[in-house]
Amino acid sequence: MSSHANANAHAQVLAPPPEWVMVDWGTSSLRGALLNAQGEVLEERSFAQGILSVPAGGFAQVFNERFGDWMAPPHRRCLISGMAGSRQGWQEAPYCPCPAGFVELGQRLLWLAPGRIALVPGLSCLADDPLHTPDVMRGEEVQIFGALQLARCDSATLVLPGTHSKWVQVRHGRVMAFKTYMTGEVFALLSQHSILAKTMDVSAELDAAAFLQGIDHSQQAGSLLHKLFAVRTLGLFDHLSAAALPSYLSGLLIGEELRDQALSTTASPVMVMGSDTLTQRYTLALKHLQIASHSWGAQATWAGLYALACSAFVTPSTDPL
Amino acid sequence: MSSHANANAHAQVLAPPPEWVMVDWGTSSLRGALLNAQGEVLEERSFAQGILSVPAGGFAQVFNERFGDWMAPPHRRCLISGMAGSRQGWQEAPYCPCPAGFVELGQRLLWLAPGRIALVPGLSCLADDPLHTPDVMRGEEVQIFGALQLARCDSATLVLPGTHSKWVQVRHGRVMAFKTYMTGEVFALLSQHSILAKTMDVSAELDAAAFLQGIDHSQQAGSLLHKLFAVRTLGLFDHLSAAALPSYLSGLLIGEELRDQALSTTASPVMVMGSDTLTQRYTLALKHLQIASHSWGAQATWAGLYALACSAFVTPSTDPL
Repeated sequence: MSSHANANAHAQVLAPPPEWVMVDWGTSSLRGALLNAQGEVLEERSFAQGILSVPAGGFAQVFNERFGDWMAPPHRRCLISGMAGSRQGWQEAPYCPCPAGFVELGQRLLWLAPGRIALVPGLSCLADDPLHTPDVMRGEEVQIFGALQLARCDSATLVLPGTHSKWVQVRHGRVMAFKTYMTGEVFALLSQHSILAKTMDVSAELDAAAFLQGIDHSQQAGSLLHKLFAVRTLGLFDHLSAAALPSYLSGLLIGEELRDQALSTTASPVMVMGSDTLTQRYTLALKHLQIASHSWGAQATWAGLYALACSAFVTPSTDPL
Repeated sequence: MSSHANANAHAQVLAPPPEWVMVDWGTSSLRGALLNAQGEVLEERSFAQGILSVPAGGFAQVFNERFGDWMAPPHRRCLISGMAGSRQGWQEAPYCPCPAGFVELGQRLLWLAPGRIALVPGLSCLADDPLHTPDVMRGEEVQIFGALQLARCDSATLVLPGTHSKWVQVRHGRVMAFKTYMTGEVFALLSQHSILAKTMDVSAELDAAAFLQGIDHSQQAGSLLHKLFAVRTLGLFDHLSAAALPSYLSGLLIGEELRDQALSTTASPVMVMGSDTLTQRYTLALKHLQIASHSWGAQATWAGLYALACSAFVTPSTDPL
């Protein structure tokens, strides 16, 4: 024991503390950050070079072109989260089943360069219903852990709004379950390609009153497939202007998502994470329903990757060297 | 009284009984039928000349080109249903509010050529909820009345599946209320433009087992926005094949529509009206949920227009001459 501890102390004296190249490689974008040993962001880079734009077998080359200089010093290490770990990405890092925290994620890192570069797996879970339908996420897991680090809490309900919104339950630092909602994609389809698009002014700014009218409508009994048609008829009968209709539609869809949660006015605040545009809408909707919330921005990604790195690279069981 | 009856008898001797040119002019198609005095279809015509393809002010010309020969004999009369009566059509025939039957529809015909050609108005109703959201239909009302004529009943629950499905409550020959569902349009958007489209074989035939699996899933608690994502994950985990996924999606959406109805296993059969492809799916789904149904095809349109014509053209209060 004593000689092993000495060896570790010896190694720490010789090698500088690790620094981190953190990469979030999604479907449509590639972002990277250089972090010092304390997790502070020294530099950031962003490219419109999502995995869909990378030919099969071309991931290492793109990575080297974009981050090769950052990786040159031997004490730099790298974690990559997002769709780069999917079947269409660099290599498939199989989903880590929930419940999952740092330990489970760290154990399932997929090492591309042993000890230096690893892909973070996404999470999977099975629905708590008779059909046990699977659900998945890739990339959001590091944002979740990052936000929990920033908020210094280990249990929360989180929502990550977007093309595919995620509602997440975290208890004692582990993601217990989550659900994906196709809210953002359905909004885009309806406002671009449907009959509703013909009467909407999609360039209009958020109309808060119309948005909250949509939220109120969404909380009524009945199916979304029917409620959506109100976007047409309220325009047809001049109850809402063309400029107000997109906000109403947004309220209907976000409200439908909120209606499906077991939210309580007395529970801890919901953590809302995402772009300013979306967190603003979710915060407005939650407040309207008397649910407390806090919002978090993109910095959570780097915080989450840093926390995972600190955990994963020092845990002997996950060290491949 | 006696001399009035004689005058009518005299007129009937001189003029042949009216024959009917019935036209269903929708968004994307123009259909017509020539009916004899007994309502039997003598000839049918169909053109890909929906109202969207007709320039403003050009409706009379298209009508004359397509049906001028049919209208030449002076005892021919014409009723036109569908979107030709909308704001983007020939002339706007304002919606007839529910409850509405033959009498109300007949009173609100919009006469283009007094006594000879009239536009049938659509129906509107207000939702029985705190928001009183309006709902509308154009063209379906004649199909509904036609089906009731063919079925020889005056009270029923009907569904007209399609791009915008209509669920209709008829009591004592009058449409009391109805609801529109954007089921068909949402199916088209998701299977053509969404992320789900990437993994689906949309050319595949109906897979009844996958369709009913979707129906079962749709009956579970929870939001459609979440259930839709199962189309992605069930493909991702190879639980369903690419060829089965469109059927599963169809089941999810049609099932969501059915879940919103107050259907009873002991009530009269639901009347399903529409294309063979869709009536087959709705019939399958309803049977799976132990709800009895009968299906009706396109012939209901001509039957409905004929019944309306017999009613409207002989009721003195609606005769503009």
